Amino acid sequence: MVRRVREIIAMIFFAVFSSATGLTPPYWNRGAAASCSPCLSWRLAAEVNNVEPWRTVPAHCFSCIGAYITGGQYQHDLRFVVEQILSYADGIPVAGDGFDAWILDVDDTCISNVDYYKVKRYGCEPYDPAAFRSWAMEGACPAIQSVAELFTTLIGSGFKVFLITGRDEETLGQVTIENLHREGFVGYERIILRSAAERGRSAVEFKTEMRRRLVEQGYRIWGNVGDQWSDLQGQFVGNRTFKLPNPMYFVP
Amino acid sequence: MVRRVREIIAMIFFAVFSSATGLTPPYWNRGAAASCSPCLSWRLAAEVNNVEPWRTVPAHCFSCIGAYITGGQYQHDLRFVVEQILSYADGIPVAGDGFDAWILDVDDTCISNVDYYKVKRYGCEPYDPAAFRSWAMEGACPAIQSVAELFTTLIGSGFKVFLITGRDEETLGQVTIENLHREGFVGYERIILRSAAERGRSAVEFKTEMRRRLVEQGYRIWGNVGDQWSDLQGQFVGNRTFKLPNPMYFVP
Repeated sequence: MVRRVREIIAMIFFAVFSSATGLTPPYWNRGAAASCSPCLSWRLAAEVNNVEPWRTVPAHCFSCIGAYITGGQYQHDLRFVVEQILSYADGIPVAGDGFDAWILDVDDTCISNVDYYKVKRYGCEPYDPAAFRSWAMEGACPAIQSVAELFTTLIGSGFKVFLITGRDEETLGQVTIENLHREGFVGYERIILRSAAERGRSAVEFKTEMRRRLVEQGYRIWGNVGDQWSDLQGQFVGNRTFKLPNPMYFVP
Repeated sequence: MVRRVREIIAMIFFAVFSSATGLTPPYWNRGAAASCSPCLSWRLAAEVNNVEPWRTVPAHCFSCIGAYITGGQYQHDLRFVVEQILSYADGIPVAGDGFDAWILDVDDTCISNVDYYKVKRYGCEPYDPAAFRSWAMEGACPAIQSVAELFTTLIGSGFKVFLITGRDEETLGQVTIENLHREGFVGYERIILRSAAERGRSAVEFKTEMRRRLVEQGYRIWGNVGDQWSDLQGQFVGNRTFKLPNPMYFVP
């Protein structure tokens, strides 16, 4: 009983101070976490590619996915994968002949579209090509900090980094290059965007073909990093692939 | 201020009643959830195969992984994947010629080793072949309920179900077949265990070879279900693969 009273007093302190500092949500707002159980299952299944193809985030997962993206766990998850990549990259014997290569995707790998997807209810609304094009044309995608650090480390270690993106070369090429440059992505070997000739192809087909050309040019693809399975599937995928989290959209 | 007072009163009620009913942990025990953030990142990375190969669950994740396995989310996650599988299977045009096939793994796919891994700190302790063999020899692995339902539905829909497992045929064949039978896995087309000749091969090589033989016999592999990426990688993997959750161990 004494313990119980002590606990209640602790609770009152907690309630007053947590609200005063604004650091911790009061416990009665935490019910949201319990009701996220179905969305945790959806998110895990989506991340391991059990759900493909999916068009939108389930409507009832709006707040759970929003909390994941903005509450810190998404950033934690990104950083953890980057640490795995760095640990692997550290053990690669770089030949020094200029043919040790890494492949990075661009959207939600190097630079973030979270600010755009916030408006689209974190993917609960279906893909809107015109709206996304307008957003991309602003060239205002911020760097994903952990991947920016990975990028710099890879280049510093002597790897050639290739950025391969399904973004349209003609309409988005210049703005994408400028956006990347502004965000610190400087010193990559080449950026490969989707040319007019590649427009009809699926992401897997397009990216496989681009990687095939690199391999034919003699590059050894040590690693391949993307937020979509379509970045990592197909052929010539590289010695290891790394799937970054992205519960907001699925690119077939 | 009035709202604050009302909140504090609500808190006191919550503290008294939650403890009385035992249904909800008091908020000050929920710190455990917050400190699971690094282990959530580890688990997601392990599930999407970013960590391979890993020998043990990180020691600091013991309680987080334990809570995941025993707290209901693991079962939720399994059931969600099974729902995805059923939804996909429902759309397959079964030819009725007896060659529409599914492949299921056995350990922690059809039947569960959670009771064994509890003793091994949910995988925080390294793989112990002798202890695992003793456990398997008991033939006491319970069915994973959602997968047992999937199994029955697939057979009822006219599919031929093949169970492919890395378990040693000579020492564990009979006990595994009996364990499966007792747990309701009745009516499968064939169970394929690892024969003496296959002992040196990796799981990917062994399972690829077994699937190759099925494909050469004319089977169409519509789906392939396992808790390990080594169940789902290699060749002849099937039209779709489904990764069940398993944060306790990694089979290379």
